[in-house]
Amino acid sequence: MNQDEERVNDNIARVRRHPGRLKDDHITLSHGAGGKQSTTLLDRLFFDVYGNELLDQGGDSAVVDLPGLLADAQAEGAKLAFTTDSYVVNPIEFPGGSIGELAVNGTVNDLSVAGADPKLISVSFILEEGLEVATLRRVAEAVRDAAAEAGVTIATGDTKVVPRGAADHLYITTAGVGVIPAGRDTGFGKVQVGDRILLSGPIADHGMAVMMARGDLALDAPIASDTRAVNKLTAALLEAVPDTRWMRDATRGGVATVANELADATGLGVAFEDEAIPVRDMTRAACDVLGIDPLYVANEGTFLAVVPKDSADAAVEAVRAAGAPEARLVGRIVEEPAASVVLVTGFGGARMVDKLAGDPLPRIC
Amino acid sequence: MNQDEERVNDNIARVRRHPGRLKDDHITLSHGAGGKQSTTLLDRLFFDVYGNELLDQGGDSAVVDLPGLLADAQAEGAKLAFTTDSYVVNPIEFPGGSIGELAVNGTVNDLSVAGADPKLISVSFILEEGLEVATLRRVAEAVRDAAAEAGVTIATGDTKVVPRGAADHLYITTAGVGVIPAGRDTGFGKVQVGDRILLSGPIADHGMAVMMARGDLALDAPIASDTRAVNKLTAALLEAVPDTRWMRDATRGGVATVANELADATGLGVAFEDEAIPVRDMTRAACDVLGIDPLYVANEGTFLAVVPKDSADAAVEAVRAAGAPEARLVGRIVEEPAASVVLVTGFGGARMVDKLAGDPLPRIC
Repeated sequence: MNQDEERVNDNIARVRRHPGRLKDDHITLSHGAGGKQSTTLLDRLFFDVYGNELLDQGGDSAVVDLPGLLADAQAEGAKLAFTTDSYVVNPIEFPGGSIGELAVNGTVNDLSVAGADPKLISVSFILEEGLEVATLRRVAEAVRDAAAEAGVTIATGDTKVVPRGAADHLYITTAGVGVIPAGRDTGFGKVQVGDRILLSGPIADHGMAVMMARGDLALDAPIASDTRAVNKLTAALLEAVPDTRWMRDATRGGVATVANELADATGLGVAFEDEAIPVRDMTRAACDVLGIDPLYVANEGTFLAVVPKDSADAAVEAVRAAGAPEARLVGRIVEEPAASVVLVTGFGGARMVDKLAGDPLPRIC
Repeated sequence: MNQDEERVNDNIARVRRHPGRLKDDHITLSHGAGGKQSTTLLDRLFFDVYGNELLDQGGDSAVVDLPGLLADAQAEGAKLAFTTDSYVVNPIEFPGGSIGELAVNGTVNDLSVAGADPKLISVSFILEEGLEVATLRRVAEAVRDAAAEAGVTIATGDTKVVPRGAADHLYITTAGVGVIPAGRDTGFGKVQVGDRILLSGPIADHGMAVMMARGDLALDAPIASDTRAVNKLTAALLEAVPDTRWMRDATRGGVATVANELADATGLGVAFEDEAIPVRDMTRAACDVLGIDPLYVANEGTFLAVVPKDSADAAVEAVRAAGAPEARLVGRIVEEPAASVVLVTGFGGARMVDKLAGDPLPRIC
């Protein structure tokens, strides 16, 4: 950098760093119009909360050195992973987290189960006119903290404001970029009969926590969302068991839906042992009261992995040691029934686990 | 690929390609619940409209070979560009385009003006319950066609459904990944006193087209949005004038806002020649009636570039030849007034062009 560039860059830093907090109490349409108020919202809320060098570049695109991005991967065989998700959960804050953690962890997890090391995340807000600025700040702080916890950089973002009644508080869309190091290769095509299925933790906590938080049930139970980033878990699994076949986080539609996708795509059967699938007592009780099968309830920090039979115990140990002490084996890949999911009960019986139909739990993520 | 993998991959293709069109006429909450209806919406609308090999991978992340992504760039000095934008334009269809083109072109353009060649795009929909499926299909087709026109691959996406009244028809968030080849280096820090400012076409068409389309003005004029991808224009400019200093598309807040950002960030002055800035007659008339300065009106396919004085004519020729026949020089970078934008009138007068305050044109993009 020559002297001229240094001077200009100092100036950029100065311009982007209007000190102080946003004075407004509520979001107005002006905050989304692209003028002074938009700049103030950016500087005094978003940059104030999660400013970093990439955001300080000042353009609409983050520009990243590829060698830096690929530092730990061998560029020769490395692949890029790219994903996106929108979050419309209602309510936006619930026991265990908020839409902010959800938006970061969900995208981090989509990259992780693709075998990628998550690197960059974009965060785009759609705000409803009248939203409390204090709420927005809490959500932005949740975004920042979740990104830090997962080790991803908030690289770029956007903010739009829609009139009162054209959104429900706020929606977030995140996109993520990750790098799959050379040699990692997971996918439906690797799954074989006899493989074992690992589940990283108890299921159904997220969906039930959100249902409870809505307060429109004649029921109150202290259930917290499982929202968390799983990238450290998947990385540990891939290190311990490099020939891990396939991984997927069990979000919308729950374990049943993800397992059906696996069965559909491979043409093989997925056989779960009913008693092996962990559900916390409180969560199971809430599901029972509502007549909902926990297998269909969304999780936001729990994943399934298919691993070779001979490495199954090593897989469980690795995931447990990396921070999921309740990880366990819950089933196996079978030849028959083809392209189907079955739950094998303790008495030797079996029932089919069909795809989710209808919409028992709307706006859970 | 071995035989087993081929068999499974054939199966994936079969599963993802449920033939036929979506039978529903309207979107329901079930389409967003992650179950059968969600899969049907994906297969029979989104994959039907813009299915491609990356989407056929079937996971939540697109996985891309880096050598393929970097084919034209020298990996050594190449950089990655990453951007996102949400689109909430009202109405979602207007003369010259729809929210679909806007969402693709806007993200393609953010990458382009960063000096990147746009490669991948993600497309995430938030749908309002009750939305007509026919409308969604038209928008998805606009997304597909705009992506094809710009030469970017739709790599991944998501769909959420919110209850009636929690959105306004539909919102789209796109994110984009591009590659900046080795040697390209633009940014605020390159801008120097004496540089010339290029504008790629007439301004204010997009904002006024959307205002007209709302139909709540006592005014009707045939104005079409300028929405277009500018990546072929910026690539031609960078090839003809490799030491192009800086580029930016003049979206929300218009040319005035972008110029103020340039002035703020560099500490230098931006001097426009009033008569040089092209505004179509119809658009100027509409602005006059509404009392809106076209300099503040959003554009969706028009960009500013700062180029060295000696290459200014070559820059204009290159952009014109690449498909923007109305490109022209509209001003220069000056020492004084520092960190400000001025409009020099034909009579030798000058007026300051301040930042946009308030919100004259909400939900224009």
